[in-house]
Amino acid sequence: MSRSPTTQTPFSAWKTSITDADDTTIRYRGRDVARLMTEASFSESVFLLHRGRLPTEGERRLIDAILIAVADHGPGSPSAAAARVVATGNRAAPEAAVAAGVLAIGDKHAGAGVACMQLLAEGLQLALSDSLSLDQVAGRIVSAARARGERLPGLGHRVHSTDPRTAVLFNLAREYGLAGDGVALMLAIERAASAHIKPLPINIDGALGAVLHDLGFPPLFAKFVFIIGRVAGLTAQVYEEYTDEKPMRIRIPVTYEGEPPRD
Amino acid sequence: MSRSPTTQTPFSAWKTSITDADDTTIRYRGRDVARLMTEASFSESVFLLHRGRLPTEGERRLIDAILIAVADHGPGSPSAAAARVVATGNRAAPEAAVAAGVLAIGDKHAGAGVACMQLLAEGLQLALSDSLSLDQVAGRIVSAARARGERLPGLGHRVHSTDPRTAVLFNLAREYGLAGDGVALMLAIERAASAHIKPLPINIDGALGAVLHDLGFPPLFAKFVFIIGRVAGLTAQVYEEYTDEKPMRIRIPVTYEGEPPRD
Amino acid sequence: MSRSPTTQTPFSAWKTSITDADDTTIRYRGRDVARLMTEASFSESVFLLHRGRLPTEGERRLIDAILIAVADHGPGSPSAAAARVVATGNRAAPEAAVAAGVLAIGDKHAGAGVACMQLLAEGLQLALSDSLSLDQVAGRIVSAARARGERLPGLGHRVHSTDPRTAVLFNLAREYGLAGDGVALMLAIERAASAHIKPLPINIDGALGAVLHDLGFPPLFAKFVFIIGRVAGLTAQVYEEYTDEKPMRIRIPVTYEGEPPRD
Amino acid sequence: MSRSPTTQTPFSAWKTSITDADDTTIRYRGRDVARLMTEASFSESVFLLHRGRLPTEGERRLIDAILIAVADHGPGSPSAAAARVVATGNRAAPEAAVAAGVLAIGDKHAGAGVACMQLLAEGLQLALSDSLSLDQVAGRIVSAARARGERLPGLGHRVHSTDPRTAVLFNLAREYGLAGDGVALMLAIERAASAHIKPLPINIDGALGAVLHDLGFPPLFAKFVFIIGRVAGLTAQVYEEYTDEKPMRIRIPVTYEGEPPRD
Repeated sequence: MSRSPTTQTPFSAWKTSITDADDTTIRYRGRDVARLMTEASFSESVFLLHRGRLPTEGERRLIDAILIAVADHGPGSPSAAAARVVATGNRAAPEAAVAAGVLAIGDKHAGAGVACMQLLAEGLQLALSDSLSLDQVAGRIVSAARARGERLPGLGHRVHSTDPRTAVLFNLAREYGLAGDGVALMLAIERAASAHIKPLPINIDGALGAVLHDLGFPPLFAKFVFIIGRVAGLTAQVYEEYTDEKPMRIRIPVTYEGEPPRD
Repeated sequence: MSRSPTTQTPFSAWKTSITDADDTTIRYRGRDVARLMTEASFSESVFLLHRGRLPTEGERRLIDAILIAVADHGPGSPSAAAARVVATGNRAAPEAAVAAGVLAIGDKHAGAGVACMQLLAEGLQLALSDSLSLDQVAGRIVSAARARGERLPGLGHRVHSTDPRTAVLFNLAREYGLAGDGVALMLAIERAASAHIKPLPINIDGALGAVLHDLGFPPLFAKFVFIIGRVAGLTAQVYEEYTDEKPMRIRIPVTYEGEPPRD
Repeated sequence: MSRSPTTQTPFSAWKTSITDADDTTIRYRGRDVARLMTEASFSESVFLLHRGRLPTEGERRLIDAILIAVADHGPGSPSAAAARVVATGNRAAPEAAVAAGVLAIGDKHAGAGVACMQLLAEGLQLALSDSLSLDQVAGRIVSAARARGERLPGLGHRVHSTDPRTAVLFNLAREYGLAGDGVALMLAIERAASAHIKPLPINIDGALGAVLHDLGFPPLFAKFVFIIGRVAGLTAQVYEEYTDEKPMRIRIPVTYEGEPPRD
Repeated sequence: MSRSPTTQTPFSAWKTSITDADDTTIRYRGRDVARLMTEASFSESVFLLHRGRLPTEGERRLIDAILIAVADHGPGSPSAAAARVVATGNRAAPEAAVAAGVLAIGDKHAGAGVACMQLLAEGLQLALSDSLSLDQVAGRIVSAARARGERLPGLGHRVHSTDPRTAVLFNLAREYGLAGDGVALMLAIERAASAHIKPLPINIDGALGAVLHDLGFPPLFAKFVFIIGRVAGLTAQVYEEYTDEKPMRIRIPVTYEGEPPRD
């Protein structure tokens, strides 16, 4: 038995500023978890873990509203469908089914929230640097998308003609004085798209992207908040698959269009 | 181009009792999502999605407390470590890193909650069928585990001598009159284990398992609630890895102990 | 900025007997990868990585045959369907789609190989300890499954009345003198099931489980070899989805059967 | 119980040109799987599934060599480390550990192969359109990367000063007359980088990217072939973790650098 060290590199401890734990306490961002458990809600803790402070009442309500808005959209949405298909073959590892659902939350399914926040940040930067109005910026954004033949992130929905979650979110943001330039530019883009392309109402990705921008979150958080909320729905979908359906019941009909038999 | 139908089976629509969506509304378990967004918290919606009704105040507080309790335990826990390792090689797909974290939530990491709920259900069934006291049942459970050389689920923790989250959860359950036979039997098992093995305080898996049993949840929900809560921490861990660390910075030192060179 | 070490534990290098790498060489099980690249096939390297030695010609051909047999079964199988559904929402991270396909390879989809190998090992142990013939053992196995109302692993297929891969594999094993007690007991189980239940031909899971038993592999390898082979098909499925289909084209029809509107 | 159809959309069967299966046969790209099992190797089937035809001898040997080259790099590489970390918490679902390893194969870990193939395709296009020599193209590529402060894909390795797999692959390609413009441009980039930056030998990602370009594969195949090959190593790593190590043995040392206690 030979024994040669493949890596001599000493190991450096990983650094973190999120959670500290010792023998008898756990702290998130310096706050005692035991106390958070009795005094805070989960959505406040989501905010705390990501921002390093507890939210105000308005911030807390917006995070709650977003998490609820994205929690489920039935078994036919790609994330839930992926979870269900994995669950049909894998009854022993529910975490595998939930993880497959998370993996479907890519650039096309719910990815528009991230793209929207990047678009809003760039647009607002442009308004500032070139002294443009939000309507002017929105006009440029819509023209550029048309010229490239690309879809505008955050507009339109394959199921809803009007996404019922958008108005609720924007109204909540206004109620708490938290609707800012992000929401304003998103609405300007909706107007410009309706004028120059066709009516394309803001969907939940556009709505949460605008609100999260105004709350000061980085673009990636649009995906993270979608995942956190959606996992609630995915677990319910997997549980329903396990309890109401037989293993291997899912069979997708397929038409073969390839080469004919060659031997 | 040949064209032969591989599957003639007609497709049956998937059935669900969780979420309904039409052109302008979305409903979870019959409740309008727009209204939930303004009136409910996320933890209430988690309860609604899984149970079909909104929780009472006490139930809501216990779900919040559990979700907070499991949200993070630092980057060294297997779920966060898996997310971080994937993030070191994959900066373009944060959903991949979060999903890897979910995949670590298996039978050994946080799986004790499920095992605990099964143990409690069986133990309480035995108490009923054989007219035994909870202490008698606990004694049998501990003896059986010792005889098989197995660990008791829900007791002991590799970091904490006393898990700071257990007492908080049990106190909340008592405060709302929601601590029942599950909590009582779990405490009896802790006493029996301390008497016959060694002091093994109830950990968060045991605590949430006992409370969820008394709230009427099925065993699988112990894993689901852990995943929902932990995803909040995993997203924060992935974001910290992306912003504070360079790609491919993680290198695990390795010692090779296998065959010497053979050619 | 406080700075408290959460974990004082020093890090122990991970141990391995599989691969060793230094500045200029890589070795699998002691064999120079540069030389394997010119002298060996991939299936030989799969054998080497798992068994610590290169295969004989017969062993190599059986591994190749098994890997080919399981490589694909069209987009409707749960693993390919899961990969396709994730790919519909995630065009930026093909690894996410492939991983979702791997996650569907659970206890029900392809898990029968593992169950089969365990069943064969137990059955052969019983034949030895109780001096039973393989037909007697097979009879007991079939009776026990009928008594418990359980399906026998490795028999029957939802698409094929006769799995075309089984005979090929058994014939190859016989040709090289590698068919042993595992194959013999599997065939005895097929006979007993046909006599006492209904005609249930050995499927690919049963065939590869029997052959891998006779090659001396542990039960888990039945799942591993399925994953290795199937990943070839999953990558082709994901590529076809990316190139032939539009993002978000997959929509599973759903019927809602839950609570009516409640507000 | 209300019953409202959420989706009226009829289901369209999924189309595929890869695999066809009926009651008694399975065909990959028109070829009988039973015959492939006796006549082909797995690497030939990988080629067939992705290209629609069987490879020539040289093509087959190059695919074998690439699959072997990437199969493993010890437990410290991000893909194997992710698989090991998931395995430490999840002993019941080996597919979860393997999938986590696949998820680490992102843009930074092995993603350079895809980036390389795109770079080579663009560079060769530029050579054609602007009548430049490969050395001129290479010079521009290196200058552009320096100007943007970006790393060149396919050059350098964190473990190897000379990647032992590169020369083997290029020699094999030359031996079979399959080394073309892709290999030539890759070597020109290596020379230009050495002249203007520092010695940066072509690593396995650069080598397989160049060879796969010359074999006519699309860029994504660089990631797919890496995944197919690496899964062989990941399964061996997970098996070693399961058999040689205790559950939950992995503990990453962590230093907390965040906010001090705040309550």
